Amino acid sequence: MPSSPNLYVYHHDEIILQQDAFLHISDLAVQRGYGIFDFFKIQNNVPLFLEDYLARFYESARLMDLPVPFAPDALKKVLYELMDKNQIPESGIKMVLTGGYSEDGYTPAAPNLIITQQPVSLPPAEVVQQGIKIITHEFVRELAQAKTINYTTGIRLMKEVKAQNATDVLYHHNGVITEFPRCNFFIVTQDNQVRTPGQDVLKGITRKNVLELATKKYPTEAGTVTLTDLVQAKEAFLTSTTKRIIPIVQVNDQMIGTGKPGPVTMDLLQDLADLENQSAS
Amino acid sequence: MPSSPNLYVYHHDEIILQQDAFLHISDLAVQRGYGIFDFFKIQNNVPLFLEDYLARFYESARLMDLPVPFAPDALKKVLYELMDKNQIPESGIKMVLTGGYSEDGYTPAAPNLIITQQPVSLPPAEVVQQGIKIITHEFVRELAQAKTINYTTGIRLMKEVKAQNATDVLYHHNGVITEFPRCNFFIVTQDNQVRTPGQDVLKGITRKNVLELATKKYPTEAGTVTLTDLVQAKEAFLTSTTKRIIPIVQVNDQMIGTGKPGPVTMDLLQDLADLENQSAS
Repeated sequence: MPSSPNLYVYHHDEIILQQDAFLHISDLAVQRGYGIFDFFKIQNNVPLFLEDYLARFYESARLMDLPVPFAPDALKKVLYELMDKNQIPESGIKMVLTGGYSEDGYTPAAPNLIITQQPVSLPPAEVVQQGIKIITHEFVRELAQAKTINYTTGIRLMKEVKAQNATDVLYHHNGVITEFPRCNFFIVTQDNQVRTPGQDVLKGITRKNVLELATKKYPTEAGTVTLTDLVQAKEAFLTSTTKRIIPIVQVNDQMIGTGKPGPVTMDLLQDLADLENQSAS
Repeated sequence: MPSSPNLYVYHHDEIILQQDAFLHISDLAVQRGYGIFDFFKIQNNVPLFLEDYLARFYESARLMDLPVPFAPDALKKVLYELMDKNQIPESGIKMVLTGGYSEDGYTPAAPNLIITQQPVSLPPAEVVQQGIKIITHEFVRELAQAKTINYTTGIRLMKEVKAQNATDVLYHHNGVITEFPRCNFFIVTQDNQVRTPGQDVLKGITRKNVLELATKKYPTEAGTVTLTDLVQAKEAFLTSTTKRIIPIVQVNDQMIGTGKPGPVTMDLLQDLADLENQSAS
């Protein structure tokens, strides 16, 4: 995380300076990569869709048998205290829940909850206007429906992503597309159906919002999206909390549609921006 | 890790008390579960098969693009310093190499090398004499040939292992057996062939030693071992650095062979114990 002398975090049950936040080496995240997290955005000092992110955080924790040390209302109180301390109107908050200080180095103990906050900004306009190139890779995340801290494959693949002059890598399995390491994926078919993978993915909150927005205007479905569907699509885009929507114009060596951001993509991006701006006002 | 007031570790480039060893929360092991490790045993103050463990440690690091901050000879020097400081004749040393203090929370930085030492003891005699029950679970480890810190599935499955009154869980994929979360797996066929999975597994050092010992006496193979092979086997056992060999007498609801530890298993255990005792003298 970028260092910043006046940035506060929540750690070991108190709000302290980020530079002073250290975890004992016996923590199960360090020893066994065991933990979950979530991340939400603050716009104009307002946390967006907080209930959705908290529900997912508690669900990820449940799937990993990690008791969150606060009930939701108490956790919200801590979050608001941290936001108030840091005063960063356009930012993201990350909550990590680890496997705790395990005595035997394998069995989870009382989890450590670490909450950090960082300034965030939207993607540069030119990235959105030009769209991005992505590559594909056969892989399914372990316990895909939980937001675990495990990014081994995603991080290792960044070398290949860069070597291919791409921006990200899209996972697929048995010809069925799932997700990016840190984003969800959508296509727009030739007849303007909006479709996103329905299984074996982390159900993104932005994905959820885009599905709800798209349903109002287009035939919309969360289901099976294949590599063949992608190659034949009119448009494609990714979604995430920090990126909102970014058009995908090339997959490996293949241009998608016209090779430019498509009209449905840009329409949904505008709807999403409007929704977020309204929520933040 | 069990706390012990006089236990030293190597951390942040120096040998310090374990109780004082803290990692900044920005480390990529904490944020993204990114790291590798290795573990070797010390018997009678002698590290066993150290060259093999170090070679594997450097290979895991290479597969994850993590530069080990020492060349092997310099790392050995640090290990011997730590052993000398702690003076634990029967112990294990664990070396963890993390993704480091990442600025952007995704890209690896200079890795943090954390070396810890703990007393270890062999499995209780009755466990070896009676053998254990295991359960099976469909799963392949991500980047199986590297010893990553990622144990999400193994740890989550301990609840089911206990619920089934078992000791461990054996992974398989498409009917082909691979490994335990922390051990390798062998069968002995009805005609006394010794066989172990050859692909998609971490190549254990104890596994290597057992293969070499077995080859002297029995037809031995690292290849494809199926769930059907297991059910039809005369004997089965697991191997690991701390456990040496433990006979497996039941898999799910199925007894293996006579339901008692088999003669080839016990013979190989004796050979392994002799090898380790000779190496430690």
